Amino acid sequence: MDHLGRLRRLRKTLAQQRLDSLLITHLPNIRYLCGFTGSTGVLLVAENQAVLFTDGRYTAQARAEVKGSRVVIACKPALVAAAEWLTRHKRTFPGKRPRKIGIEGEHLAVAGRTRIAAVLGSDFRLKEAPPIVEQLRMVKDAEEIERIRAAVLLGASLFDVALKTMRPGVREAEAAAEMEYAARRAGAERMSFDTIIASGERSALPHGHASEARIPNQGFVVCDFGVILAGYCSDMTRTVHVGRPSLGARELYEAVREAQRAAVDAVRPGVAVGDIDRAARKLLQKRGLGRFFTHSTGHGVGLEIHEAPRVARGQSELLRPGMVITIEPGAYVPDLGGVRIEDMVVVSGSGCEVLTPTGKELVEL
Amino acid sequence: MDHLGRLRRLRKTLAQQRLDSLLITHLPNIRYLCGFTGSTGVLLVAENQAVLFTDGRYTAQARAEVKGSRVVIACKPALVAAAEWLTRHKRTFPGKRPRKIGIEGEHLAVAGRTRIAAVLGSDFRLKEAPPIVEQLRMVKDAEEIERIRAAVLLGASLFDVALKTMRPGVREAEAAAEMEYAARRAGAERMSFDTIIASGERSALPHGHASEARIPNQGFVVCDFGVILAGYCSDMTRTVHVGRPSLGARELYEAVREAQRAAVDAVRPGVAVGDIDRAARKLLQKRGLGRFFTHSTGHGVGLEIHEAPRVARGQSELLRPGMVITIEPGAYVPDLGGVRIEDMVVVSGSGCEVLTPTGKELVEL
Repeated sequence: MDHLGRLRRLRKTLAQQRLDSLLITHLPNIRYLCGFTGSTGVLLVAENQAVLFTDGRYTAQARAEVKGSRVVIACKPALVAAAEWLTRHKRTFPGKRPRKIGIEGEHLAVAGRTRIAAVLGSDFRLKEAPPIVEQLRMVKDAEEIERIRAAVLLGASLFDVALKTMRPGVREAEAAAEMEYAARRAGAERMSFDTIIASGERSALPHGHASEARIPNQGFVVCDFGVILAGYCSDMTRTVHVGRPSLGARELYEAVREAQRAAVDAVRPGVAVGDIDRAARKLLQKRGLGRFFTHSTGHGVGLEIHEAPRVARGQSELLRPGMVITIEPGAYVPDLGGVRIEDMVVVSGSGCEVLTPTGKELVEL
Repeated sequence: MDHLGRLRRLRKTLAQQRLDSLLITHLPNIRYLCGFTGSTGVLLVAENQAVLFTDGRYTAQARAEVKGSRVVIACKPALVAAAEWLTRHKRTFPGKRPRKIGIEGEHLAVAGRTRIAAVLGSDFRLKEAPPIVEQLRMVKDAEEIERIRAAVLLGASLFDVALKTMRPGVREAEAAAEMEYAARRAGAERMSFDTIIASGERSALPHGHASEARIPNQGFVVCDFGVILAGYCSDMTRTVHVGRPSLGARELYEAVREAQRAAVDAVRPGVAVGDIDRAARKLLQKRGLGRFFTHSTGHGVGLEIHEAPRVARGQSELLRPGMVITIEPGAYVPDLGGVRIEDMVVVSGSGCEVLTPTGKELVEL
């Protein structure tokens, strides 16, 4: 991975934001910038240096993984160690006094801020930085896209497992167990989120984690799942129907499928993500289903299952080549059930490539 | 679950802390106090009322789960909704101006604090509260202990799966996959943390997640794993040996086993958790292994896999009946390998009950 290039781009943004350095506490951001995958660490990036602080459990691992940053093994909490290091190195540290240290406001806890402020004293000033690293992470490079592609393919293979397992009387959690087992055996580190198998009336719950409920004889089953492979996440949803679907159920499915296609067709560089959401919403509204589409159309995917950009109403972020997002409209109709269809797409030079290889015709079990 | 009793105890502490109310953002704390298990919510507890703020995805779920608190379904982020509700209800709200609102400093992000402070204005003052709810959660009631007991038994059954699966040449991740599959099929919601199967040289890494490495012909395998069942976590470690252990390996194992027993024997009401840690450490020091015991002796377990108290050097928290902690000393010796043995125990009126039913003699595979 191009850790040096990432640090270079981050430093450019720091200069624009008039920050002397950035104290990074969000682990996916740390991994992105220096490669460290441990569960405890703080990364300090300044103009002339980058230092990862972690503890003795990670000595060997940090040495093996970290690229482009120094590693400091501390006996204290990493955050305190970083603050103390700053005070010790303030002379060699560039910038005017007080030096402005950016913190990640969405990720650093209030108590953590209090703790480092007490150590830093008046030579430094803490400033809530915008989500700079998240902005960089939005556009994936070729190596990241290859990893995401591999995760998506592994994820998609689990749908076949689901199809073989699901039938009336089988518990939702049983189908999830078979999928997760297959994922693990195929090399997944873990699932990227709790597998959703929501059948019958439960298909109308947008957040129906696989439960002890048994799949009924008739109705939709929403299957939403993903894996983490080599650090990168996949995410997909297919909705199948147990038994013969009614005309209404069939219409519902086709409407969601058309909305999903309309949103995918709208994806190209320069389009605002809010317009992608609108493309899906407009189609469902035309079918009288607008009020049953109760969530947003999608989100970025990468080192985290949910990352920037949010593909939601009114969001102005413009699509750029290399962005990877989900397109997942749904409609949840009481008494009829819920349908959601989700692919992952990568924005290309002129449009997008759908990464998820799985067909979208309505499968009847 | 006794949500009303918990709210009552919390209110007593709020009065002692001179807080007019507490804004709770940590999801396990919210679940503990009102039963809500959704992934988005904020709970406001004042002297005369308790209100849960969540969004439209959780309307049905909140109605079914929440006890002892009002539910407000908001169109805005729950945190902002809670702050706006406070400003609208400030007249009916008890306490002198400015009302002191406690926040959870370890859990609320800096940006969240900034956002609510902007809404609240000068009628309210935000104050970092000590971990009040975590303190309450340390002592488990009978219903919680029953759930933990069930989780521990399910967890322990996975060790048999591990024993059947592990042999030279099998990948660590394969053993983990079999264990996780069995857990799911037995009703576990998920694993309580990433399963650790650390074999051969990797057994000397205190944090060896199950990897693609194959189990060698000779050496220790550390197996550390747990499940979540009905919301409550289990955690256990056993270390087995592949092939005939050398005399040194046998001595290492017995030393850790004695240290673990010494710590368990020390558990009774009124003893400081730091003394439990010392009991284990002292024994390993006597065997010349002190410097290879690189982590603390244990931690509380409940709705979270790691919760208060920390069973670590110098910690002064006194054990009380109903506390559930792990006892997990280990020694990691380069070239010889690592050994860790972990049980969960519940503090009783006069000592403790070991919840983990699994034997601790050295198993040779």
